[in-house]
Parts: sequence; structure tokens; C-alpha cells
Amino acid sequence: MGRPGQSHIMSSRYNPVTEQVVEELAGIVGAGNVIFGDAERLATFSHDEIPDPSYAHTPEVAVRPAGAEEISRIMKLANRLHIPVTPRGAGSGLSGGAVPIFGGIVLDCSRMNRIIEIDRANMVAVVEPGVITNELANAIRENGLFYAGYPMSLETCQIGGNVAENAGGGKAVKYGVTGRYVLGLEVVTPKGDIVSLGGKLVKDVTGYDLIQLMVGSEGTLGIFTKIILKLLPLPKAAVDLLCLFKTVDQAIGAVPDMIAKTGIIPTSIEFMDAQSVQAACKYLNESLPYQNCGAMLLITVDGADADQVQRDYETIGEACLAAGAFEVYVADNHTTSNRIWRVRQNIPEAFKLVSPQQSGEDIVVPIASIPQIVRGMVELAKKWDVLIPCYGHAGDGNMHTRIVKNPAWTASQWKERLPLILTDLYKITIDLGGTISGEHGIGHKRKPYMTLARSSEYLDICRAIKKALDPNNILNPGKIFDL
Amino acid sequence: MGRPGQSHIMSSRYNPVTEQVVEELAGIVGAGNVIFGDAERLATFSHDEIPDPSYAHTPEVAVRPAGAEEISRIMKLANRLHIPVTPRGAGSGLSGGAVPIFGGIVLDCSRMNRIIEIDRANMVAVVEPGVITNELANAIRENGLFYAGYPMSLETCQIGGNVAENAGGGKAVKYGVTGRYVLGLEVVTPKGDIVSLGGKLVKDVTGYDLIQLMVGSEGTLGIFTKIILKLLPLPKAAVDLLCLFKTVDQAIGAVPDMIAKTGIIPTSIEFMDAQSVQAACKYLNESLPYQNCGAMLLITVDGADADQVQRDYETIGEACLAAGAFEVYVADNHTTSNRIWRVRQNIPEAFKLVSPQQSGEDIVVPIASIPQIVRGMVELAKKWDVLIPCYGHAGDGNMHTRIVKNPAWTASQWKERLPLILTDLYKITIDLGGTISGEHGIGHKRKPYMTLARSSEYLDICRAIKKALDPNNILNPGKIFDL
Repeated sequence: MGRPGQSHIMSSRYNPVTEQVVEELAGIVGAGNVIFGDAERLATFSHDEIPDPSYAHTPEVAVRPAGAEEISRIMKLANRLHIPVTPRGAGSGLSGGAVPIFGGIVLDCSRMNRIIEIDRANMVAVVEPGVITNELANAIRENGLFYAGYPMSLETCQIGGNVAENAGGGKAVKYGVTGRYVLGLEVVTPKGDIVSLGGKLVKDVTGYDLIQLMVGSEGTLGIFTKIILKLLPLPKAAVDLLCLFKTVDQAIGAVPDMIAKTGIIPTSIEFMDAQSVQAACKYLNESLPYQNCGAMLLITVDGADADQVQRDYETIGEACLAAGAFEVYVADNHTTSNRIWRVRQNIPEAFKLVSPQQSGEDIVVPIASIPQIVRGMVELAKKWDVLIPCYGHAGDGNMHTRIVKNPAWTASQWKERLPLILTDLYKITIDLGGTISGEHGIGHKRKPYMTLARSSEYLDICRAIKKALDPNNILNPGKIFDL
Repeated sequence: MGRPGQSHIMSSRYNPVTEQVVEELAGIVGAGNVIFGDAERLATFSHDEIPDPSYAHTPEVAVRPAGAEEISRIMKLANRLHIPVTPRGAGSGLSGGAVPIFGGIVLDCSRMNRIIEIDRANMVAVVEPGVITNELANAIRENGLFYAGYPMSLETCQIGGNVAENAGGGKAVKYGVTGRYVLGLEVVTPKGDIVSLGGKLVKDVTGYDLIQLMVGSEGTLGIFTKIILKLLPLPKAAVDLLCLFKTVDQAIGAVPDMIAKTGIIPTSIEFMDAQSVQAACKYLNESLPYQNCGAMLLITVDGADADQVQRDYETIGEACLAAGAFEVYVADNHTTSNRIWRVRQNIPEAFKLVSPQQSGEDIVVPIASIPQIVRGMVELAKKWDVLIPCYGHAGDGNMHTRIVKNPAWTASQWKERLPLILTDLYKITIDLGGTISGEHGIGHKRKPYMTLARSSEYLDICRAIKKALDPNNILNPGKIFDL
């Protein structure tokens, strides 16, 4: 089980997955749902969407259970034999949450993909964790309902992963993040107990809120087998505004008091700096007038009433013009709306073409500090002589960036310097009252930096909770913090 | 330290508060902030708003610390000497959360009453726990801002208690409960560490969500010393509708799909059955035509735009008329609005006059099950020959009721039968997918019934967390569950 170059991982803590273990697993999930000894298929479970392959680790075995009972038996087996278990959704994560860094068993949730119930009267959906978020969105739309949890990876990601990572996305300004919509969970604990939490209830103070402890715990405290989600009435109208500014300062300066001044809470306020816009437009062969543009804001307004939405977007558009926008495009139909959102959505892909070696970040700061963090990133790019494009969810302070390797650097220079650049970036962020991840999570990617963001007392409490729930450190070990 | 009639409490687990302990405490908070040996003053810390005096317990000493450092020292002392500590806000709770059932030290937060900062640019307030919720609401209103956490006891309760109980209230339909607005906490842990959680951030996935674990933990996991609250733009318009129905079935039948059908989320949807309306109107000498009325809905609509609010309340009003309302009063000014809200707010007080012996309950069910739970309560009242008035937050399924003692019963009959009636009520609620408390909490009042609502696996996880954070069981012991 030794892994070259991964000497910090003491994999000898765990026992290997033997033929006999595989037989036991086959007895639980059926032989057709066990993948073992097939290096190519197992490799698909070794990584998420982090581009750097050094974060990948191949599991010894992957299993595809059908539900809570089977997962319970797997967890009991894993505790008895001391083998680590890593749950996995679509593998669309960005911090390594689904990567089995000590090998062992990967628990693939893809077979648990039923929408169990769409309860229109209570405005909730009951789903299994492997449901693709977009499929849920489509299924409930027919019922006039709306699921407001909206990660940008909507089309591929699974609800279980969204809940495990407490996925955010563009609509958090108005609607909040995934956790707000999780009313209930069926969870298999690290020891293999099946526990029901919450229900179709919007208020519940019957004991500790274990639901929100599970949400965002990155698969380290429990495996979700059923999820009860609160739904909203489907907004009847939505309009997008694309606001072009000459400078970053103008664009970003418009954001902090937009809500406070207008009293309108937009659905999303997305920011793109010039290099992000240019890269995405070139990648898409898009003819937006990006040449004169120092930065863009992409603002969505939605609501139950078309007239109201029109008044709101006019007010917001005027606020942007007053803040210095030289052009405001209104996209009030699906085609135009899709066209401008494609620019925003394709920034990460566009930069992969510029250089495959990069580190995707999702720092978050108080909204009033957005101008400072953007200026900080510009200075950081100069200091280190790298590209640091800046884009993301300006409305909630969650800025995305990619530290893109300077092509002149050798691989070892990059490997040596990236941690220093990240440390700089995180320190600037934390000094502004921010933190190192707003929605992507910690996993093993950001674990080395947790002590920058969190006190030892905070980490001690997290460790105490992890040990209390998972005394053998079986479930997704090595993530977020070391025990 | 023995307490007659409280044989289930093993107070011998803890050490008594001696003169020497009092001296140590005086050294920490100053002699003027220690109350000891004064039975009358200590008695004010013995109870909350539960009317039944058998839930009261007098502390041995009460202290009024000035902040986190002093509380940290008190908690370290308490752990060293093995003395229980019970934090206390305004004492307006309804489940005993602030009652020191093992005696020891009561930690009164009333001196920590500063609004530290109103940060308009970030739309957050930073407050100490002893700030009266209403005072915060008034202070931020001047800044065009709004705190959406809104317990009915707004005028007396403190923010710290609201957070500790995860207070709900009437506006939860649209705005959710207290927890949604808590972005950050400074907490003194049971062991006396001072920990900062979160910040002025609306997205944060940097480690476990300890904030929401602390919210609603009823003062058993930590003492809040600073609270960062998310604020919203102040709604510019609000209108109340008072809708009168001939029957409970008509009124309550209108609720479940009101939101789903209209797409409008009212700020609140309050329900009052005939006996609640009559009791409150008589108590207030109010001339509403309650004689012909089988039930009322009190519905509030608010928003950033007066025209929109008007369209919304007209739509909602029409939905109520279609559902059988025989009269809909519109209150679009402060005076009329206050008048109709007074009826709702004074129901508990009105029933105290009918009989002082009663048990206030706040069960919660899925909204589509509201008609069944109301019918269940009517049947329960017949079965036991008691009054069970029903009112509360119909829009979120959180129904209030009071089991009012039959005047013909002796005190011992009441004492014997109430637990049986409550067990019946809770079982009906749980069978409908509901739970035993939507906003009042468990404390020691509902602790005996936790096993009806929660599985042993759930309770084991809660116990494991409590033990991990509070190994000596010093902070507010004996609440929610027994260790």
C-alpha cells in the first residue's frame, strides 16, 4: 500500500483489502457492484476535478451499494477490519473530498439515484444522494417548484456531494447555500448505525442540530442515504444584466452597497475581471465587446411577478450606470441569458487551455472588502509574476481565482512556489476577515492551510467531534484536519 | 443541596458553592456582581416563563460577568471545583433552558448588553448576548436595516437566549429562524476556552459548522460572548390581513397550498381557533366580531415595494375568500395592525386568567398535516375533558397549544394526567411526521419525552458530542437528555 512521494500519509495505520474482504463486500452489495483488481476502472475513483494529479489516490476496491442497510453493513465490516471508507458522489469536487487518500474502500453512491418523492403540498423533495442536481431541478420544475441550491457544476454534480460539501454557487446572495434547504437526512454513521435526522419540518429544536453538523462535513461524519430538501415556488420571471466597466475598481465598487442602497436582493452578482472575460470569450469565440472592458458584473434578478422583476432590474441597472458602467446589456430571454452565462461558466475551462498547471481557489471575504481583496490579488500576481485571474460570486464575497503557473517556471519551481503564493493569498484574505474556502471545501487540498484560518481551539473541538463519532477514524480519514 | 420532590436529580454529583468559591468568583467579576446568600434575589434566577413552579430550582450563587475573559475563568474554576454553571439571558424561555436544576452558579449575561457594531456596508451587526432583541431591531431600523429573527417575546428576550434556543416566531415562513442569521459567534467552551467561529461571511465551508451546532444547543455546549448577525434591507411596506372563517377546517385548509398556489411567500401566517380568539378578545376587551368566528388567520405580507405588497395581499386575500373566509380585514396602517396582532400576542396571557395551571406546547408538523393535527387536538380535548386551545404559526406548521387543567380535577389528578395527555399529543404529532418542539426547546421540561421523538442512535450522537466538549458535564447539565 506504499505510495511513493506520499510519505506524510501513514497508510500502515489501516489494513489492506484482501480477497476475503472483497468476498465479504460482494456478499453485501452483490459481486456485480464490486470493482477490484481492475486498475483502469479503479483509477476513475482516484481523483475529483482538482487538475493536479498529485492529489489523486487509487482505492483498493470500489463498491456501489443500493441503500442504507448495505452501507451500514459495509461500515461495520470496515470498523471490524480497520479499513478506511471514502464516500463518493459525481467526483465533481474541487478539494479532494471524494479521494481515498489511504486507499481502502470507495463507496460510490451512483446507484442510489432515485427521486423518492416530490411532495408538492409540503414543498419538499425526498431524494437519494446519487440524484444529479440538474435532474432534480428539471423534475420539480414541472411541478412549479424550485430547488435553490445551485452549484455551478449543476449538470454533473450529485445532491449527496452538494450536501457533503455544503455547495454554494451563484444564487447564494438571495437564496443562501445548500444547507439552508436540507430539512432532513438519513445518515449511516461511521460506526454503521442508521440515523434519521429532521423531517419535512421548517422548524425543529428537538435536540442538537446534527443536520447542519453533517452538512459540509465532507463525508467525514456520515454517509447520507436519504435527503429531504425544502423547495420554493418557481420564480415566474428572471432577467440577467451584463454590466461592462472600464476598471475593476468601478465594477467591484458597485457591489458592496448595491443591496443596502436599493433594498433589492439580486439572485446573483457575478464578477469577472478583464483577463477572465477575455480568456472565456476567446475560448467560446464570443463577440462581446470585451476589448474595452476592464471588468464585468453579471447580475440576475428573479421573482414571482414579471412587472416587479422589470422594476428591480431597472433600479439595479441604474445603480450600475451610476457606479460607472459604460454599457448594460439586458438579457430577458433564454437564448441571450444562456449566452452571457456561458462566458461566466466557461472561465475555469478557458484557463485550463492557457495552462493546465494551476490551483483553483474560492476564498471568501466580507462583501465590503471585495475591492481590497481584488487589489490584493493584483499585487500578488505582480509580486510572484503569475496570472491570478479573478471572478466569482461577488454578491456574497466568494471570489474565485486560479493561480496559473508562469510558463517560464520549471515543475519543481512551481511545486515549491505555489504553497508560498497560496499562503500569501490566504493571509491577505484572513487579514480582511475572510477565510480560505467559501464553497469548495478543505479536503486534503487545503488541509495544510487550516491552521492559518482556524484556531487550535476550533480544530480541537472538530477533532473531539470526529473522534466521538468515528473512534476508529474509518470514514474518509485524512480530510479537513489530521487527528 | 437536597431538594424535596426532586429525587431524580442526583445533585450529589456536584460540589457545593462555599464561601471560598464565592470569594474566588468575586475576584473574577467583582464583588458587586456576585449574588450569594440573598434568597429573594437568587429566587429571580430560579425560573423562566414556564408557569409550573415545580420546574424551578434556585442557584447557589449568581454572577454577572463582563465578557469572555471572565467567563473563561469562571468555567475553568467550575471544572476544577466540579460546580455546575447555567447561563441565563432574559429568563423568557419556555422549556427551562436557563434554570439551574443542579444549583451551582448562574451566569447572568445582562451586563454584556452592548451593540458593538452596526456594519451597514456588510449588512451585519455584532452584538453581545445580553442585548434585548427589540433594542437591536430599533437601532438598526434607523439604518434602513432589519433583523429577521423575530420571537414573539421580542420586547423582553435577549439575543443570546434567542441563539441558544434557535428562536423561531411568526416570520419564519418567509425569513426562517434565528440560526439562518447567525454568521459568527465568540464562544466560551465548557472547558473555558474562548473560540471564534465564522465571521462577516455569508459563505464559509472551512471545517465543521460549529456555529449551527451551538445555535439551539440550549446553553449546553458553549456560552456566547459575541454574536455576528446577518441583517436584511428593511422592508418598505407591510400589510396584515385578518381573515375570519366559520370553521377551523376552512381556515386551516387554506394554509397548506397557499404558497404553492400563489407563488407568494407571506411573512407570517398565524392561526387562532375560536376559543383562542374569544379568550384573547375578552381579555383585551376587543370588539372584533369573534362571536361568529370559528377560526382566524392573521397573514402578513411585506416587501421592498408598496405596489407589489398590495398585489400580493390582494392575491392572498382572494385565496382566503375562495377557501371560505367570510370576512377579510386589511390592516395597512400601524394602529390597525397593532390592534389585530395584540389579539394573537395576548392569547397566552388570556389563558393564564382562565386557569393558571396549564402546559404551553409548541409542536410542529409538516404544513400539509396541519388540518390533521388540529383535528387530533380537538379529539384529545374531548378524550381527556380539558381545554386544548390551538393557535400559532400555521405557515410553518408550528402550532401552539396549552393543555389547560380541568377545574374539577385535583392537583394530584392534574399531575398524574398531564404527562399522559402530553404523551398522547406528542405521539399524534410524531405519527404525522412532526416533532415535540418547533421553537421553545427541550430543556428539562420536555426531556422525559425525547425518546418519543428521537432514536437512541440520535441521542447517543448528542451524548457523545456533549461528552467530547464538556467531559465534566459542567455546563447546563441535565438539559435536553441525560448523560
